[in-house]
Amino acid sequence: MMSPDRRLNVAMLGTKFMGRAHAHAWRSAGRFFDLPAEPGRRIVAGRDAEATRAFADRWGWEEATTRWRTAVSHPEVDLVDVATPNDLHAEQAIAALEAGKHVACEKPLAGTLEDARALRDAARRAEGDTFVWYSYRRVPAVALAHQLVRAGWVGRIYHVRAVYLQGWGGPETPLLWRFRRGRAGSGALGDLSAHIVDMARFLTGEEIVEVSGSIVETFIKERPLPDDPSRTGRSTVDDAVLFLARFAGGAIASFESTRLATGVKNANRIEIHGERGALRFNFERMNELEVFSADDPPPLQGWRTIQVTHEDHPWTGSWWPDGHGLGYEHTFVNQVADMVTAVSGGTPVVPLPDFEDAYQTQRVLEAAVVSARERSAVRLSQIR
Amino acid sequence: MMSPDRRLNVAMLGTKFMGRAHAHAWRSAGRFFDLPAEPGRRIVAGRDAEATRAFADRWGWEEATTRWRTAVSHPEVDLVDVATPNDLHAEQAIAALEAGKHVACEKPLAGTLEDARALRDAARRAEGDTFVWYSYRRVPAVALAHQLVRAGWVGRIYHVRAVYLQGWGGPETPLLWRFRRGRAGSGALGDLSAHIVDMARFLTGEEIVEVSGSIVETFIKERPLPDDPSRTGRSTVDDAVLFLARFAGGAIASFESTRLATGVKNANRIEIHGERGALRFNFERMNELEVFSADDPPPLQGWRTIQVTHEDHPWTGSWWPDGHGLGYEHTFVNQVADMVTAVSGGTPVVPLPDFEDAYQTQRVLEAAVVSARERSAVRLSQIR
Amino acid sequence: MMSPDRRLNVAMLGTKFMGRAHAHAWRSAGRFFDLPAEPGRRIVAGRDAEATRAFADRWGWEEATTRWRTAVSHPEVDLVDVATPNDLHAEQAIAALEAGKHVACEKPLAGTLEDARALRDAARRAEGDTFVWYSYRRVPAVALAHQLVRAGWVGRIYHVRAVYLQGWGGPETPLLWRFRRGRAGSGALGDLSAHIVDMARFLTGEEIVEVSGSIVETFIKERPLPDDPSRTGRSTVDDAVLFLARFAGGAIASFESTRLATGVKNANRIEIHGERGALRFNFERMNELEVFSADDPPPLQGWRTIQVTHEDHPWTGSWWPDGHGLGYEHTFVNQVADMVTAVSGGTPVVPLPDFEDAYQTQRVLEAAVVSARERSAVRLSQIR
Amino acid sequence: MMSPDRRLNVAMLGTKFMGRAHAHAWRSAGRFFDLPAEPGRRIVAGRDAEATRAFADRWGWEEATTRWRTAVSHPEVDLVDVATPNDLHAEQAIAALEAGKHVACEKPLAGTLEDARALRDAARRAEGDTFVWYSYRRVPAVALAHQLVRAGWVGRIYHVRAVYLQGWGGPETPLLWRFRRGRAGSGALGDLSAHIVDMARFLTGEEIVEVSGSIVETFIKERPLPDDPSRTGRSTVDDAVLFLARFAGGAIASFESTRLATGVKNANRIEIHGERGALRFNFERMNELEVFSADDPPPLQGWRTIQVTHEDHPWTGSWWPDGHGLGYEHTFVNQVADMVTAVSGGTPVVPLPDFEDAYQTQRVLEAAVVSARERSAVRLSQIR
Repeated sequence: MMSPDRRLNVAMLGTKFMGRAHAHAWRSAGRFFDLPAEPGRRIVAGRDAEATRAFADRWGWEEATTRWRTAVSHPEVDLVDVATPNDLHAEQAIAALEAGKHVACEKPLAGTLEDARALRDAARRAEGDTFVWYSYRRVPAVALAHQLVRAGWVGRIYHVRAVYLQGWGGPETPLLWRFRRGRAGSGALGDLSAHIVDMARFLTGEEIVEVSGSIVETFIKERPLPDDPSRTGRSTVDDAVLFLARFAGGAIASFESTRLATGVKNANRIEIHGERGALRFNFERMNELEVFSADDPPPLQGWRTIQVTHEDHPWTGSWWPDGHGLGYEHTFVNQVADMVTAVSGGTPVVPLPDFEDAYQTQRVLEAAVVSARERSAVRLSQIR
Repeated sequence: MMSPDRRLNVAMLGTKFMGRAHAHAWRSAGRFFDLPAEPGRRIVAGRDAEATRAFADRWGWEEATTRWRTAVSHPEVDLVDVATPNDLHAEQAIAALEAGKHVACEKPLAGTLEDARALRDAARRAEGDTFVWYSYRRVPAVALAHQLVRAGWVGRIYHVRAVYLQGWGGPETPLLWRFRRGRAGSGALGDLSAHIVDMARFLTGEEIVEVSGSIVETFIKERPLPDDPSRTGRSTVDDAVLFLARFAGGAIASFESTRLATGVKNANRIEIHGERGALRFNFERMNELEVFSADDPPPLQGWRTIQVTHEDHPWTGSWWPDGHGLGYEHTFVNQVADMVTAVSGGTPVVPLPDFEDAYQTQRVLEAAVVSARERSAVRLSQIR
Repeated sequence: MMSPDRRLNVAMLGTKFMGRAHAHAWRSAGRFFDLPAEPGRRIVAGRDAEATRAFADRWGWEEATTRWRTAVSHPEVDLVDVATPNDLHAEQAIAALEAGKHVACEKPLAGTLEDARALRDAARRAEGDTFVWYSYRRVPAVALAHQLVRAGWVGRIYHVRAVYLQGWGGPETPLLWRFRRGRAGSGALGDLSAHIVDMARFLTGEEIVEVSGSIVETFIKERPLPDDPSRTGRSTVDDAVLFLARFAGGAIASFESTRLATGVKNANRIEIHGERGALRFNFERMNELEVFSADDPPPLQGWRTIQVTHEDHPWTGSWWPDGHGLGYEHTFVNQVADMVTAVSGGTPVVPLPDFEDAYQTQRVLEAAVVSARERSAVRLSQIR
Repeated sequence: MMSPDRRLNVAMLGTKFMGRAHAHAWRSAGRFFDLPAEPGRRIVAGRDAEATRAFADRWGWEEATTRWRTAVSHPEVDLVDVATPNDLHAEQAIAALEAGKHVACEKPLAGTLEDARALRDAARRAEGDTFVWYSYRRVPAVALAHQLVRAGWVGRIYHVRAVYLQGWGGPETPLLWRFRRGRAGSGALGDLSAHIVDMARFLTGEEIVEVSGSIVETFIKERPLPDDPSRTGRSTVDDAVLFLARFAGGAIASFESTRLATGVKNANRIEIHGERGALRFNFERMNELEVFSADDPPPLQGWRTIQVTHEDHPWTGSWWPDGHGLGYEHTFVNQVADMVTAVSGGTPVVPLPDFEDAYQTQRVLEAAVVSARERSAVRLSQIR
């Protein structure tokens, strides 16, 4: 199935960080995977005409436009890839669904719960498939963890401990769009917490039923303006979010996301402990999964570090020989491969999140915000 | 000062796990440290006459008794070491203080806040010095971390992330005294959370002002009886405690303790991030401290793993040449050295917790319990 | 310089593992880097017509051929990429040089010293530039190490300790072409030792002046035939090579390569200690470099783990934001970027090895073989 | 067997670093282990009367002397512990054996092969048991590795890779006795290589049959005098020793020891790869053993880090609960426990090296020196 005659034509909205990662993935998936259809890079939409044209040239898109509605309703397009800021997801993705397209939307599903609900509802009504780019599910080590939990490696789950730590958000970092609620919807919450909530739900296979306490914090309230660092403006998003939660199956969990974990660049880290075993993952060493089995004889028990690059691991057989690790953008390529497989009637290597699924993640984020707002803290001054 | 004429006579209450660790420390500190007074192992008290006698023989105590009051009020005794279960601390330590002795009490200070308050009050009235065996402060790497925070390495603190993970408490573990509230006061709370709350307070130098959410969980409600595993009895303590908190200086924190972290043996682990740097410690690699400085040039920034065995590190100059690590019980020996120094008018290497200090830790634990009891959770079913 | 008008047309020989890695690199470099010329995938040559045609389709080569001489002498071609087995390098690369092309040759330069010398001589006579795909030089962490040594981080070098450990070569592994001397030239020697000798020379900036002892070993002498595992054939290459060496500047070194390091997948690992500092790298964690500075105050000295993903690190600014690691094939993309820069008159990020340079590596390998053949071992039976 | 009536009286020669470590061990073993006899600290001999007296007081020895012959022939003494510099071992240990005592000698057995042979011969003639303090065999993780190899975990051994890296020997380090051949016999060779040769022989259970190449290097030829740093004196020992070797069973090995591995404090590190599995140990994380089994299903294969603190691990059941690690000096305590067991007719946890055994290690060191002296290197200038 090297050069499939079938094509899956894509319209992509957005040309920044995510646009670039998606473009690479649409362009490369068919090189490494034997796909049922070759993705066609049909049209890309951006706000700046010249930059969008240059982007299209560089990444090989047939057409460039500044009018996203043109792209979304393009008759030759099968799938619309929404890689724009969070506040645009709802309008764009709903339009695409209504035009009868499949839609792949960047995470989080939306900047607000209302938008997310509208997207979920639109997806229910639509004929097209929906996907959300929670691409960390496509890290081979994460997918292996998912498979191991399914296979009973962990057993009844007691603990989930998830953090997403970044350290770039110190006081000297300027007031980028990521610090403006209107554009971003939230700070660490939608940017980082969304990832770890999806990851925890994906790995455990369980829903969160309760948020048991939450802190949403903005440490740096004023930041230098990007254009004029001598002046400052107000950050309207959170820098860090911590919350405790309970899963349907009884596990208890903590979630922490922050942009102020000095010294840490990109630690999307999760630890799961169950009755029969345990798992640990850290994106900073993305080609490794640590597993523990309580079935080993006690004096030989220990955490096993698996290099997840074996041909029998998820996706890795399509890449390089064992021991040759993948990098960040491979997760997007893997996701393209799985989405093309799914819309062609096949089964992805591990489940792909659709709008319904991503809406559940969004509800958890909302519960964290509500919990923090209610602020039912116990002051130490009450304890004598 | 090799063989000091001055002696500091000790009465020790308790001969189990902690009694053994303390006994070793009282016996060894003068071998490795040049102390202002040699600890005299004057009298040890236990419940079983024969076992206490054997203990005294093995560890070199002059006298053994089954009557702790005899030991506590012994005229030749200078310091009483309380190494008994938590429910006995208050009565014994208060009696010792009233007898005019110095008192070193095992942690947590008490099984209940009431007892802790009584101990704190007694200490205020007494002439003797008080100490609590929060011995992890005497891990050289922890003391170094304390010194670095004091010296400004970390700057304004944003995040504290403390866990104490153990994995021995699965459903097959019998109903030991540690699972009975009457004896132990609590489960992971007093056993493990107490350590990490003390550690966080010690390292940051700040007080916790608020508990912002808490989960106190008993996963395994019935356990096999130690004497008859075919029958079960009710566990009356928590298996795991998670809570969120705020420090006086604005840092936000999470604390997790559990006996059900399958795969983890003894991970007393803390991570601190501040404006200028960061620190990480895990007791499972107790001779190492990881530090990060934001003052390094960005392309050369990274976590530095310090082997804390240098002659200029806390206590280590009294042990072995650089590169020869210490083990668990050295922390007790270091504490004995510091306590003997303190009662002799000297300055310990880093601050020793007294009853006042340990009472603050106990208040935090109480706030966590109160927060969990109030159960102001947000149910996901409320979020649509 | 987004879409350069200038093109650099490439002919590639070989379509297997390396052909695939190179093809991806030629196709992708211009997407991530702003290059002075866009590589044109003009023609690819392979032995099987159908497979070569399919390869060309998949990877976007304009033309496919089974006659490598056609590709090498193609009038529109600027650079010939030799990605064939080692025994073909000399004939093909020399023909390309004589046709006036630039040549990029897979490593090792050749299967025999004689071939390597012929290649070196041809390069001296030719006008085209020559390059060898020692692509581990293009791991950002390795290039950073190179820069740090140049900047004096290490000072006078005492020790180099290089291993390349793989574990796939057990007795059940069939008699692939890699185990046949006629095709491969050698086993671990050319496959793995070549890499670590190049790496050590690259990082130290010094030549090896002496091999002080060597073991060349074939553990598994008979292997199952790929087509009929019930029969075996003779392996005619080494499984492992160990040797000791001295550098011009006085450093002493050990080199070990093996395909029988059970448990290890792909550990290209080097450690360098000098008077002022030290460095450690392991390809299995390719995004990390460990550095040590003796200039730090002794109690704060430690190995610093740098995540080499910062925009100021070599190449990484062209990829993703800090903390998003690269994978194996990125090294090839980085090399394409540097080669295109070099043939366009620019300066590569760190030096590219040419045939002259790779010939020096080949001499070291030969010295190891000679040393092992002379077999001047001291038998323990001689020592009484 | 808490307070055995039987005593094993010890005379110890030497009161420096090793004397201190041994003294602690003789004093503590009976506290943690139930021994068949209680070691009696009968008499200690040192060169300085006052210092020896103070040492005896501090460590609880009944008698102190400056005449080692008095100690060695003392009628109440059962075992003589030789903890003096290497040049004294032969005379003292032989005298002790001739006086009918058991002897425990510090490693290496002697400073010269001649002395070692004399000691081996004396041991053959004597009635007393002999032991050598290769105490790293008593690291629980090392003993576990030994047991695993015996149990077939590794199978046929291919590779042994042993290094002992220290970094304290830079040019500013003064000309201590350790740099004088007359006193020390050698530098890194006897100090460090001796340890890793013993370790490799102990773990593999095989003898080395050939040294296949060797480098013995003195980087720093002149060092400041300890008493007058403005003047320098000649170092007459090696700073570093590297050699290659073959084992009787066909495994090939490299050994490296150095005092100039800048950045490394005390890395006694060994890696063993065999047909069925592999092992890794590093003394800097002495409570951990890494093991790999090729019997695990390939996608689940990985290096397992065992925390060797379980009650079923060697010796650890006599110390603390699982997860509470040991430190450097515990190895000496474990060795005392095993030696007391052995002279009482019991079986040590793992084999103790006697003089015969340690003599084999010494022969290997000699072969390394001979190999380096013969200097059969291949100069690169010979390779064209």
